[in-house]
Amino acid sequence: MKTIYLITTGGTIEKVYSEYTGAVANVTSKIDRYLKLLRLPDTDLNVVQVMNKDSLEMTTDDRVLLLGMVRAILKENAPIVITHGTDTMVESGLYLERALRDLKVPIVLTGAMTPLGFEGSDGLQNLTESLFAVRVLPPGIYIVIHGQHFPIDHVQKNKQLSRFVWTEGPTA
Amino acid sequence: MKTIYLITTGGTIEKVYSEYTGAVANVTSKIDRYLKLLRLPDTDLNVVQVMNKDSLEMTTDDRVLLLGMVRAILKENAPIVITHGTDTMVESGLYLERALRDLKVPIVLTGAMTPLGFEGSDGLQNLTESLFAVRVLPPGIYIVIHGQHFPIDHVQKNKQLSRFVWTEGPTA
Amino acid sequence: MKTIYLITTGGTIEKVYSEYTGAVANVTSKIDRYLKLLRLPDTDLNVVQVMNKDSLEMTTDDRVLLLGMVRAILKENAPIVITHGTDTMVESGLYLERALRDLKVPIVLTGAMTPLGFEGSDGLQNLTESLFAVRVLPPGIYIVIHGQHFPIDHVQKNKQLSRFVWTEGPTA
Amino acid sequence: MKTIYLITTGGTIEKVYSEYTGAVANVTSKIDRYLKLLRLPDTDLNVVQVMNKDSLEMTTDDRVLLLGMVRAILKENAPIVITHGTDTMVESGLYLERALRDLKVPIVLTGAMTPLGFEGSDGLQNLTESLFAVRVLPPGIYIVIHGQHFPIDHVQKNKQLSRFVWTEGPTA
Repeated sequence: MKTIYLITTGGTIEKVYSEYTGAVANVTSKIDRYLKLLRLPDTDLNVVQVMNKDSLEMTTDDRVLLLGMVRAILKENAPIVITHGTDTMVESGLYLERALRDLKVPIVLTGAMTPLGFEGSDGLQNLTESLFAVRVLPPGIYIVIHGQHFPIDHVQKNKQLSRFVWTEGPTA
Repeated sequence: MKTIYLITTGGTIEKVYSEYTGAVANVTSKIDRYLKLLRLPDTDLNVVQVMNKDSLEMTTDDRVLLLGMVRAILKENAPIVITHGTDTMVESGLYLERALRDLKVPIVLTGAMTPLGFEGSDGLQNLTESLFAVRVLPPGIYIVIHGQHFPIDHVQKNKQLSRFVWTEGPTA
Repeated sequence: MKTIYLITTGGTIEKVYSEYTGAVANVTSKIDRYLKLLRLPDTDLNVVQVMNKDSLEMTTDDRVLLLGMVRAILKENAPIVITHGTDTMVESGLYLERALRDLKVPIVLTGAMTPLGFEGSDGLQNLTESLFAVRVLPPGIYIVIHGQHFPIDHVQKNKQLSRFVWTEGPTA
Repeated sequence: MKTIYLITTGGTIEKVYSEYTGAVANVTSKIDRYLKLLRLPDTDLNVVQVMNKDSLEMTTDDRVLLLGMVRAILKENAPIVITHGTDTMVESGLYLERALRDLKVPIVLTGAMTPLGFEGSDGLQNLTESLFAVRVLPPGIYIVIHGQHFPIDHVQKNKQLSRFVWTEGPTA
């Protein structure tokens, strides 16, 4: 059995539609319902929710909290998937990279352009890819999404295209 | 073959999620994609889009337009389903009732609390019920939703409960 | 609240795919998982499983059992939906009709051409229509499927077309 | 853009339910409909159907045909995903391994325990993982399924568990 940690922070991937307000927002964690759709017989998957926020509202304190959780898990030498809003995913990834030295496992950030369970959602695809990626990628910090994996210092979001793209160097 | 008209006006049932804004709104008609999921071998279904609006933004002019379309279709003696936002569905239904005399077919208003294609949506259920209801209900104007049918002058939306409920008399 | 009984007997609507045999069969009841997808706030729905069989394997004893359950429920004057394999649905319906006199509620038989939860399934549509139909149809025995309702003595299955069609008189 | 070839051979992943026979079988290719659910903006995906068979019915001639197609594609140095029935997936993989020398790209075989589009299907998960795997695995022949990747000479199907498991050496 391979132990993998999944840290959830919110973001579009976990947003829900409110019938009362007619808006989508990070209200309750829902990733467990979708993870149940995946077959991972050889995986010991541990889900840890550290917050449930739109990533545009993430503060330095939130990133300190995320880093603390990552550090705690790294003591087990287990790879980590972090679900995160796409708008500041690169920023959080670079924050982690600056703080962490000599990684022995991969850390993958992922998320979605459309919430899990909404028509056309890319959420389950990105989760599937990320859970696979942390079993095969070398140590380092990556964004995995839409069939691609990017080292965290060579990636940025293209909002118009609803995807991530390669860059020459760090973008946050 | 039974001829049925489906008039679409927008409302939550047809809202889509925008990856750019992160909001749900009435942008493009999407009901056709969902009607294709239903088997209606004995039905000649004609879909007519008259507008695509949140029902809170519907004006008197919009209701005049809707009434004009209904009048035109009634000349064919075909029953009509109208998809509509739930917030002013009763208001539009009562407006039609005041304008139309001696109906020979049922007119059913329906909609959804959560957009078609979003997890937990009631949209396809309500469409299914409404398309069945116009084949069996007596002439009159109704709201059909969540397994229930209400004469238009005995119904109101309960926003807290996300459903419609019976009333003693007209509520708009 | 409207009390409705749903009697399940098996049939294609409840068939499941076996990964071991690669075949579909009536093994475990699964209708509850799909009923949860419907919003029926004003319905007190009671599900009763009497058997779980391919309707081609139904015996006279099975129909006696079904009739007994129907008789018991009719004492409550509650309408009844019966899910049933399509191949002998007409036969069971006519059997019930011959045995039951002076019905005061509608009894609706329904089923599916493709099992619930398989791509392109008509199962949830037919369930939705049937649960609505028993609230509006006059007393009698019907098949409700694909947007249509047929009195039990004017209907037969057309296997080539995967649907039911009108007939002049009883067909079993 | 990354060029990837997807060779389809049939198997459970592509089986469809027949309303006429009540059985599931390899009749028409359906993988395109499911690939459309994936976002692969950086992938130039080429789908090639070489046959559509239950893998228990695959003959030596069929494997010769598959090998020929693989050889042709390898001239482009593009990685290959092969969808295949699970029962003889290992056999076909070992057949390819014996015939091919000095691979410069990964070849991934995958499939499903339950057909694409049936409730609980693992098909889309396995496709997603395989399309990701061929972008990151070193040259070689693998089975990728349920979050795992197996070198072809260390894997066998466990039919009782509906999964693949590691072995000491080749099993076919």
